[in-house]
Amino acid sequence: MADDANSERTPLIGDVRRRNNVDFSNSINDDGIQSVPPHGYDAENNGLQSNVEFDIDDTSHVLSGMYESLDYDVCENQIHLKDKQLHSTRWVLKRELARWFIMGMIGIITGLIASLIDVSVEKISELKFSFIKKYVDQCTEKYCLIEPMLSWVAINAVIVFVGSTLCTFIAPVAAGSGIPQIKCFLNGVKVPQVVRLKTLIVKVIGVIASVVGGLAVGKEGPMIHSGAVVAAGISQGRSSTFRFDLKLFEYFRSDTEKRDFVSGGAAAGVSAAFGSPVGGVLFSLEEGASFWNQALTWRIFFASMLSTVTLNIIASCRNGNCFNLSLPGLFNFGNFGTVSYDPRELFFFAIMGCIGGLLGALFIFINTKLTVFRIRYIHNRFAKVAEAVLVAILSGTISFLTILLYNDCQPMRAEPATYPVQFFCPDGQYSSTAGLFFQTPESSAIHLFHDAEGTYRLETLGLFTVVFFVLAVWTYGLSIPSGLFIPSLLLGAAWGRLFGRSLQLIFPHAVWLDSGKYALIGAAAQLGGCVRMTISLTVIIIEATGNITFGLPVMIVLMIAKWIGDLFNEGIYDTHIHLQGVPILGWEPPLMSSNISAREVMSHPVTVMRSREKVGRIVDLLKAEPHNGFPVVQDFDPDNQSMGSGIEDVVQTFGTFRGTILRSQLIVLLKLKVFLENADIKEKMSQLKASDFRDAYPRFPPIQQIHISPHERDFTMDLEPFMNPACYTIQDCATLPRIFRLFRALGLRHVVVINYKNEVLGMVTRKDLARYRADVSLARGKIKIHELHVSK
Amino acid sequence: MADDANSERTPLIGDVRRRNNVDFSNSINDDGIQSVPPHGYDAENNGLQSNVEFDIDDTSHVLSGMYESLDYDVCENQIHLKDKQLHSTRWVLKRELARWFIMGMIGIITGLIASLIDVSVEKISELKFSFIKKYVDQCTEKYCLIEPMLSWVAINAVIVFVGSTLCTFIAPVAAGSGIPQIKCFLNGVKVPQVVRLKTLIVKVIGVIASVVGGLAVGKEGPMIHSGAVVAAGISQGRSSTFRFDLKLFEYFRSDTEKRDFVSGGAAAGVSAAFGSPVGGVLFSLEEGASFWNQALTWRIFFASMLSTVTLNIIASCRNGNCFNLSLPGLFNFGNFGTVSYDPRELFFFAIMGCIGGLLGALFIFINTKLTVFRIRYIHNRFAKVAEAVLVAILSGTISFLTILLYNDCQPMRAEPATYPVQFFCPDGQYSSTAGLFFQTPESSAIHLFHDAEGTYRLETLGLFTVVFFVLAVWTYGLSIPSGLFIPSLLLGAAWGRLFGRSLQLIFPHAVWLDSGKYALIGAAAQLGGCVRMTISLTVIIIEATGNITFGLPVMIVLMIAKWIGDLFNEGIYDTHIHLQGVPILGWEPPLMSSNISAREVMSHPVTVMRSREKVGRIVDLLKAEPHNGFPVVQDFDPDNQSMGSGIEDVVQTFGTFRGTILRSQLIVLLKLKVFLENADIKEKMSQLKASDFRDAYPRFPPIQQIHISPHERDFTMDLEPFMNPACYTIQDCATLPRIFRLFRALGLRHVVVINYKNEVLGMVTRKDLARYRADVSLARGKIKIHELHVSK
Repeated sequence: MADDANSERTPLIGDVRRRNNVDFSNSINDDGIQSVPPHGYDAENNGLQSNVEFDIDDTSHVLSGMYESLDYDVCENQIHLKDKQLHSTRWVLKRELARWFIMGMIGIITGLIASLIDVSVEKISELKFSFIKKYVDQCTEKYCLIEPMLSWVAINAVIVFVGSTLCTFIAPVAAGSGIPQIKCFLNGVKVPQVVRLKTLIVKVIGVIASVVGGLAVGKEGPMIHSGAVVAAGISQGRSSTFRFDLKLFEYFRSDTEKRDFVSGGAAAGVSAAFGSPVGGVLFSLEEGASFWNQALTWRIFFASMLSTVTLNIIASCRNGNCFNLSLPGLFNFGNFGTVSYDPRELFFFAIMGCIGGLLGALFIFINTKLTVFRIRYIHNRFAKVAEAVLVAILSGTISFLTILLYNDCQPMRAEPATYPVQFFCPDGQYSSTAGLFFQTPESSAIHLFHDAEGTYRLETLGLFTVVFFVLAVWTYGLSIPSGLFIPSLLLGAAWGRLFGRSLQLIFPHAVWLDSGKYALIGAAAQLGGCVRMTISLTVIIIEATGNITFGLPVMIVLMIAKWIGDLFNEGIYDTHIHLQGVPILGWEPPLMSSNISAREVMSHPVTVMRSREKVGRIVDLLKAEPHNGFPVVQDFDPDNQSMGSGIEDVVQTFGTFRGTILRSQLIVLLKLKVFLENADIKEKMSQLKASDFRDAYPRFPPIQQIHISPHERDFTMDLEPFMNPACYTIQDCATLPRIFRLFRALGLRHVVVINYKNEVLGMVTRKDLARYRADVSLARGKIKIHELHVSK
Repeated sequence: MADDANSERTPLIGDVRRRNNVDFSNSINDDGIQSVPPHGYDAENNGLQSNVEFDIDDTSHVLSGMYESLDYDVCENQIHLKDKQLHSTRWVLKRELARWFIMGMIGIITGLIASLIDVSVEKISELKFSFIKKYVDQCTEKYCLIEPMLSWVAINAVIVFVGSTLCTFIAPVAAGSGIPQIKCFLNGVKVPQVVRLKTLIVKVIGVIASVVGGLAVGKEGPMIHSGAVVAAGISQGRSSTFRFDLKLFEYFRSDTEKRDFVSGGAAAGVSAAFGSPVGGVLFSLEEGASFWNQALTWRIFFASMLSTVTLNIIASCRNGNCFNLSLPGLFNFGNFGTVSYDPRELFFFAIMGCIGGLLGALFIFINTKLTVFRIRYIHNRFAKVAEAVLVAILSGTISFLTILLYNDCQPMRAEPATYPVQFFCPDGQYSSTAGLFFQTPESSAIHLFHDAEGTYRLETLGLFTVVFFVLAVWTYGLSIPSGLFIPSLLLGAAWGRLFGRSLQLIFPHAVWLDSGKYALIGAAAQLGGCVRMTISLTVIIIEATGNITFGLPVMIVLMIAKWIGDLFNEGIYDTHIHLQGVPILGWEPPLMSSNISAREVMSHPVTVMRSREKVGRIVDLLKAEPHNGFPVVQDFDPDNQSMGSGIEDVVQTFGTFRGTILRSQLIVLLKLKVFLENADIKEKMSQLKASDFRDAYPRFPPIQQIHISPHERDFTMDLEPFMNPACYTIQDCATLPRIFRLFRALGLRHVVVINYKNEVLGMVTRKDLARYRADVSLARGKIKIHELHVSK
């Protein structure tokens, strides 16, 4: 029976790969990344296939080895317990207050940064567009249009050059929207430099450059990233970019606390970007949370709210009245007033949901191909800058040519485009094509939502959709900070309005047909099709329209767009995460993975340490092994390791498990020379504090920097007081879903696999779990469990 | 140093209580509940106090032994793995579709039930009030007002009598709002009968009776409970009340799946009650979730949305146009139109937040005293009905007397109270006091939000606040279904409007002073002070006003009300949960509990079973022990149990741990006579399916109903294929926070405590963890860890 999936896929006792020892050097891909060959599990074909096709070209099937995991588990060793006992009630309350205070600061500063970006973009764009408009107006009569065009393109190119250079050479992680990086961070992956201060500075300058430079980008994604960096910075009270340490909030120097604050920062960023405090909280939860905690959520909400309020006050003050809080977010969709909808229109909305899903999937498909191309061929940093500048030049040129070649003249209205340009139109009219290109994407979207009926011809909207689609697909992934929300919204607004206009032609007498409304629904559909967010996106759109009327249609449209899009590929953020090979863990274990046992998942053999270990061996192990956690065992002789004594069904064990110790702890111990042979060892041990281990967080010196004399190599270290004695373990017969749930729910970095005698068999890390992925192919009606390569 | 909390509180190896063996019969409280004396840990006083004051009168410090835990862990035994391997891809996809289908049905049916309640209340109230109004109008002239008063009171009494009798005698768990029960269920506590069909029927009839019967109640809480019952019923495809089994969705017969659907049902209930689909999802998460799962949240949102739409269509059809979806929820706060606020008003709103927090705390304080009184003295079911009828009579009488004695005559307006009653007012006027009492609390609240300025005199509002406060405090906790949302809202609306009116007197020229707005803010403050919900309540209020304008003030007010209220006591739902002694687990481990180790938390000694166990011993153990899970061990001789061999620092162990087996599994095995000595054992074993174990869910026959012949008692059972071999365990040195997190994040029912040799030392269940509670006393600046009694 072909449908009996995995019916003979019972775990074999000897089925253990010795990944750490054996050198698989048969495959090196273009990046020079050495890959371990995969084992493919085909749910249909009863068991292990030893000769699965290894598609070297498929970048999305490699898991990068460079990403480390964050550790949310508390090491409850004797030092920790002693530390806890020193804490008075007052200390606990003070910590609570500090948490609220920090969250408040995160909200306010994120709001300020968002305002800064907003004001800069507005002022610089104003300068740029008014200069070019004047130039164009002069040249239309003198037939010298090539001049303003060249100057437009040149201005864009220079601005984008600055932004891209900064980003490429100083903080490459600042490129793109930052949402994938934040998602990874909240998922528990250590993305290098993602929450550093220099990343923030580059992000802010870069996003101003990319928006002002006329690229098809928005500033919302980068704001979310900014909020996250602010959160990490404030909560840690120091910056390694500028080498200062305020010695504040030292207690919050752990992955767990940092993650909590970063959730708040991301929420504050969303809140500032869209004026959507509830949406911000939901975004943090949807993209990052694993364990919902009421108190934490409430604090995140606080940050989120303060961010909106800060932004609001600044925006109001700029409008002359600090107390008119009518401008909640940076990108407010504007007032839809009395526009309502007839439930029968839901049918059209559903169709738009399908279109959004399809267009979104197409967007992702093309962008994926492009990204794979970039990963493979555009390594050189100068090439990266050149590509960004090239896109800037092309964006400018194409926009200008489109305006030039296709002129949709409209009479001047009460509220025309921000910078109405006449071009070849008769006096008293302006070019509505130019109106779409000749302002920031954000303003264009708002105009599409609210401009009066008949502002745009059908062809104008169609042409704009096609041109902007191409530009947006190309732009996302350039080496410059760039948000994806606004381009998607604008794209959707354009074809949504086109859809509405077409309906008006079909139903000429329908009074309910407001094309601005269809622009809004189109925007939601396109956004849903691209980012595949669910409840948070719904709330963001509801809050940004400031109107609950469109709640239901937006929900329906987003639901349909996601369903349709999911048939073809993953959301754009997940796609980019997988293209980077980040070992991200999903919400649930892969489907049909319950036949995979811990013995297959685990890394084996394991490097273990004995409770009392020679200093020399520790140093050698730390130098030789890249691992960050080691099991501490007893009854184990490292010099006498028999590999399963030749009998295939006996897996080698590594002594009785006593606890785990982290590389960072060992390095601190070596640095402080806590050796049993030292005369002052007793005093030293009793003086060790939790802060000794926390001080170096998050960057511990590499083992190479620790000086150990040959004499000291023979000394002994007692690891027992420092190891985590009660860490979570898993039995060797546990299934992948069980290990997955333990990992996901508790945010672990590694878990030790033991047998029923409590003997160490192997280790499971995030990468071991992330290797397994279920491919659901609806066309073939099959689910295939799929093992990714892990590159070194 | 007095602040060095617990500095000497290091765990002692011998510090193990033998709770299961020793008979602590020294304390029996009023309910005849036998209590185990507590151990008190005082964070200030360095360690264990053996003579902590045991306040027998304090019902809130007893944990009831009657509540079992739900089990969200999957038993991954050989049967389960075999079952999983039989599942084809098509089966997996079908299950996914079934999940969506069921969620959709839950939404629609919850919407229908909400409509049913709504229509019934409306129609019956109409009958009642128009009858009495006519009577009053007749009698005002004839001076026979005692007659309509008596008939009003009599009608109320009869209706409430019916509702309360049904509730008290058929489904006592249907009393109250149901939110505490749902909260417990989602937290993982098995509350008997809470999701049974008969509970639903009683709830629906009862809530109609209580609202129509003139009690100070709302119908929103019961709707949430109804949604939850609908969810459990549909997903299980059968009813034990009516003894039918549709044999549908059998795969969903597990605690895990049922909880997921119940979350959806609760969300659909909130969504129907307030027209708040997003608020519904957030409610489910805030009150119940432990692990946020994107796919599940998305399905919950689907149910929530369909519920609002269903309700909406029915409400629109009743209004004559099925396609005008303008009435989203049952309790829509009405259109606030252009009312806005000045940011300077936030100061007043903050003060209102404080008032709400204080009044809420007072409400809870008085209600707690009353509830303790009820628990202690009102046992008799007739007494319970009598109390409900008494409150109904008093509510009627007091309302009538207030109207009679205090007449606030107002000229007839365009939109006066629903049933304007003239009483002693001159012609062309009506009594606005009567207006407040003479309609359902819901309509009164809406009137307070929207009635024109000057509709109510200051004194009217003050008097109403006091009278209604007393009635509402008394009513909550009666043996009849009753929601708390509407009474709180109405109360808050009354004093909020009073507050607004007073401000008008202080600032006579302020144009921004709209007392309806202050009524809304007051309602939010009072609600926040009573229920202490955070983000979900904010969203519910935003969605119910259909207006995002008041988002920020509502957030601020709720935040302040919660902060102020939390200084005094817990929210009303948590208070009631604790009064019932339900072993609910909070979001985080109790503060300052990291000095408590697994050895202290665990129950010891443990009843264990050997992998091959005599049938007789299993039957005897099941009869003797109430436990639901047993460790399976090897190398253990039950007849030769030495209690720690006399040496105090050696804790007795119970053999090497191999897995856990559940009572329900043992009973199924005994029933099917899976004994090794049987001739057909091989065949029997191979034929056993997961469904054999699932069929009896959730109620397994008691061991007394299983017939085992004396001959069979000597047979042997092999437990190894049926036990869960890879279940989560915890080391004996683990701290309480670590065990807590494992339990909370993974929804466990019990965890086995092992030592480093993997030998069983004890078991930790939900009750063992829930016993520990941190009391934060701000006045003394102390946090005290506190151990509750567990009653048998």
